[in-house]
Amino acid sequence: MPIAIFDMDGVLYRGMLVLPYARETLERLRKAGWDLFFATNNSTATRQQYVDRLNALGLGGDVEHVVTSAYATAHYLERLEPKPRDVLVFGANGLRKEIRDVGIPVRDPDDVPGIAPPAEAAADGVDPGAMRSYLEHLELPPPPDTVVVGLDLHLTYAKLAEAQRAVLAGARFVASNKDRAYPVEGRLLPGAGSIVAAIEVATGRQALCIGKPEPFLFQEAIRRAGRPGDRVVVVGDSTDYDIVAAHRVGATGVLILTGLTEADALRRATGDAVPDRVVRSLEELFALPELAGA
Amino acid sequence: MPIAIFDMDGVLYRGMLVLPYARETLERLRKAGWDLFFATNNSTATRQQYVDRLNALGLGGDVEHVVTSAYATAHYLERLEPKPRDVLVFGANGLRKEIRDVGIPVRDPDDVPGIAPPAEAAADGVDPGAMRSYLEHLELPPPPDTVVVGLDLHLTYAKLAEAQRAVLAGARFVASNKDRAYPVEGRLLPGAGSIVAAIEVATGRQALCIGKPEPFLFQEAIRRAGRPGDRVVVVGDSTDYDIVAAHRVGATGVLILTGLTEADALRRATGDAVPDRVVRSLEELFALPELAGA
Repeated sequence: MPIAIFDMDGVLYRGMLVLPYARETLERLRKAGWDLFFATNNSTATRQQYVDRLNALGLGGDVEHVVTSAYATAHYLERLEPKPRDVLVFGANGLRKEIRDVGIPVRDPDDVPGIAPPAEAAADGVDPGAMRSYLEHLELPPPPDTVVVGLDLHLTYAKLAEAQRAVLAGARFVASNKDRAYPVEGRLLPGAGSIVAAIEVATGRQALCIGKPEPFLFQEAIRRAGRPGDRVVVVGDSTDYDIVAAHRVGATGVLILTGLTEADALRRATGDAVPDRVVRSLEELFALPELAGA
Repeated sequence: MPIAIFDMDGVLYRGMLVLPYARETLERLRKAGWDLFFATNNSTATRQQYVDRLNALGLGGDVEHVVTSAYATAHYLERLEPKPRDVLVFGANGLRKEIRDVGIPVRDPDDVPGIAPPAEAAADGVDPGAMRSYLEHLELPPPPDTVVVGLDLHLTYAKLAEAQRAVLAGARFVASNKDRAYPVEGRLLPGAGSIVAAIEVATGRQALCIGKPEPFLFQEAIRRAGRPGDRVVVVGDSTDYDIVAAHRVGATGVLILTGLTEADALRRATGDAVPDRVVRSLEELFALPELAGA
């Protein structure tokens, strides 16, 4: 059974807007017997939240066909030997939930040392000595064996310090993804990669990244399909993330051009980032030889 | 008049402990007519706080001979044309004060959008959607023309987001220093460089760094001495910071070995990081030809 893996935002929808021919594309592929997966680097939402959105937009899909970086991170950790036994997560509850769901203990965000400074230390722009002294004299628990970093909208300096302490003490250092920015309605916010970089600099160690452009996310989709597909096609709007990751799992990388930026990225792309196929709309997919018969 | 620039922590003292021969070294150099400067990448303390510490330790020195990265940053900004008119500082009050002292307006930390989330958004580990929605719907003031980043023990995700917004809007992006870590009693904390890296990744732009290994700090000392010294000697304990910066201002770089780590760094040093002279103690300084007559 052929496998197609779709990036979601920017390929099938934008916010609450379904992109042209998205419904028809998925329907046509399902009818032609393709196994369809949906993959996202986002680590803050649960798979069920994605299913709810796909269904609300009339795109179909079930929880077994959604792979988030949080989910892939949990399954990566589960397959490690020895399996982590004490994980500190900087990220959203969705990420913590996926890891707990595979039976790995995760610390509560409230248990991070340094997150509850007294008023004089908490005061910003007054006396940095008060905060330093508070951090310096914290009672520190044994460090966790694994640090997982995703997009943490509640990041504080104390959290960075705790991640640094754990990683320097030898904890495994895993990033759900290294996206530079996180686009929300009307603005950009810093992505998980921004937070990961801070910890990498503070520790001199590199995080192992689960999300695209690394292969783990698509590997997880292919694993879920149950057997190697005779054809695996990835459809995404980013050369540096989707197309590179596609090539790392031996899939055909189809770039869909959704704007000027991506056309520009296409011109700059080299090596693994060069797409096998480029389409301007989802409808054009069916003209590709890889989609023959669909 | 010959100029000597000393790194302080690790060279003249460690915490509250004066290192062997530190008092005698400074006294002897002063008597021999050297102009002595004290330079630190630390941006959180004011110069007066360093003078107080030097005096408390019996090392002498006055505010005109202390150069911090905060002070050098302020003077770098002051010499820009056009001079910044609206600066956002992520760092300590010492950094804000130095910049205000050269007549440049600096925003208050309380004015950063996003620092006062409502309770449901502030709650960590519950609903990332509440924090995202809060950040997404913030009323955003015109961005500042300059972002200055130092060590900010009060860093939050909202501050990273505001720095990202300003830099993407075209603000100048200046780092007081890029130190990876900040050693305090009994532990390491993340350094300014860790915070700068997060913003660099979120924006795809590089900060201009004022602190060592860049030349600005030592240039400021030499400028304060009033004329180019016939001899400029830098004494520091870091190849990557002190020695590189010494070479960038044409000074003789003397490495003082204060422990195993530095001996190791010495073996790895290449290019500008290779010291001109290596001493095991301050007393050995006076055997160097550069110190002849002192």
